[in-house]
Amino acid sequence: MIDVLVLDVNETMSDLEPMRDRFVAAGLPAHSLDVWFASTLRDGFALTAAGTYADFRTVAGDVLATQLADAGVEPTEDTISGVLSGMTQLSLHPDVEPGLRRLRDAGLRIITLTNGSAAMSERMFTDGGIMPLLEHRLDVAEPQRWKPHPDAYRYAAAVCDVPVERMGLAAVHPWDIDGARRAGLQGFYLDRRATPYPTAFLPPDLVVPDFAALAEQIAR
Amino acid sequence: MIDVLVLDVNETMSDLEPMRDRFVAAGLPAHSLDVWFASTLRDGFALTAAGTYADFRTVAGDVLATQLADAGVEPTEDTISGVLSGMTQLSLHPDVEPGLRRLRDAGLRIITLTNGSAAMSERMFTDGGIMPLLEHRLDVAEPQRWKPHPDAYRYAAAVCDVPVERMGLAAVHPWDIDGARRAGLQGFYLDRRATPYPTAFLPPDLVVPDFAALAEQIAR
Repeated sequence: MIDVLVLDVNETMSDLEPMRDRFVAAGLPAHSLDVWFASTLRDGFALTAAGTYADFRTVAGDVLATQLADAGVEPTEDTISGVLSGMTQLSLHPDVEPGLRRLRDAGLRIITLTNGSAAMSERMFTDGGIMPLLEHRLDVAEPQRWKPHPDAYRYAAAVCDVPVERMGLAAVHPWDIDGARRAGLQGFYLDRRATPYPTAFLPPDLVVPDFAALAEQIAR
Repeated sequence: MIDVLVLDVNETMSDLEPMRDRFVAAGLPAHSLDVWFASTLRDGFALTAAGTYADFRTVAGDVLATQLADAGVEPTEDTISGVLSGMTQLSLHPDVEPGLRRLRDAGLRIITLTNGSAAMSERMFTDGGIMPLLEHRLDVAEPQRWKPHPDAYRYAAAVCDVPVERMGLAAVHPWDIDGARRAGLQGFYLDRRATPYPTAFLPPDLVVPDFAALAEQIAR
């Protein structure tokens, strides 16, 4: 079916929920995590749409500074780093390791491609026991375009030296499925919470609840 | 200084706060308005970055459907329309009408350019007494690219038949200032809440607290 499985990282592999306590500790309401993540992607995509680039840490820190100031908290570099360092301490969803092991055993090449930084997830991949399963851990610093710009997916295909058509992207984010499909990849939607898929985006080639079900479907 | 002032609409001219009650009435927490607006822009920008287009109503309705389903509320078309129709019932911030009147009196041509639909704000502009001050009310349906893609701003310049350098964009959103500046326009940042300006975006040519101060600065 495909030769290379491309994995989105934030939320697709990692559980962001532990970040919520850090937002609260910094003086923000618990729900500010959700606004922060949506706004960080919004601003990263805006820069990409405008034809330029900034890294995840910069954009995410800018958004957090705005949220802190709006809440009447001084947005010091210490406070911002204290919250954002949580991104390096996350854990994998429990279905990731067994699912990926089965996919690797079936002969699939597996890589990660994140709008964050590849370094940010090193500890999570090591602690979660999947580091040896990953052929490459890529981020968008090289193409200087955030997903879902086609250059980000084409860059991954070039690194793996396969045609985009021989790649499939697995993600919980419909915007990522849509972008991957428009760039020529297959799109596998991980629908952990039975969320309606947005009508404006190209539909996925496959909808599965988790990585166990994805392995069931494509590892043969 | 400039010939044409381009106005962003949502939040820059309109106060979105009355929308909050509609989210609550639909069974969502009050803060879901903020996630909805950030996520709607995120998804519209994602489609733009991927090289395609959907209109604001479709993208905004998709995001709302996701939020409703996550909250255990059936995302019916009636519920979605009930919330989103609030966008046609908003009011102008109090500084808009006097500020624009002064700018128009000083000889500036004034237009609006929104990622929403131009029709959505008709009632607000009429009720707020500024309809006669607006030479054009544009949206991104024609260029099929959401701001901050350069095509959106270039389209406005083409309609007005002026070089982009003779235009200035006024907005409360740094991503809009950044995109306008990269497309060659001047960028005027309306900083109503004294928010730190993100470091990843090109800085504005002018920072003012509201339209009264903008008129003070550029209407001479």
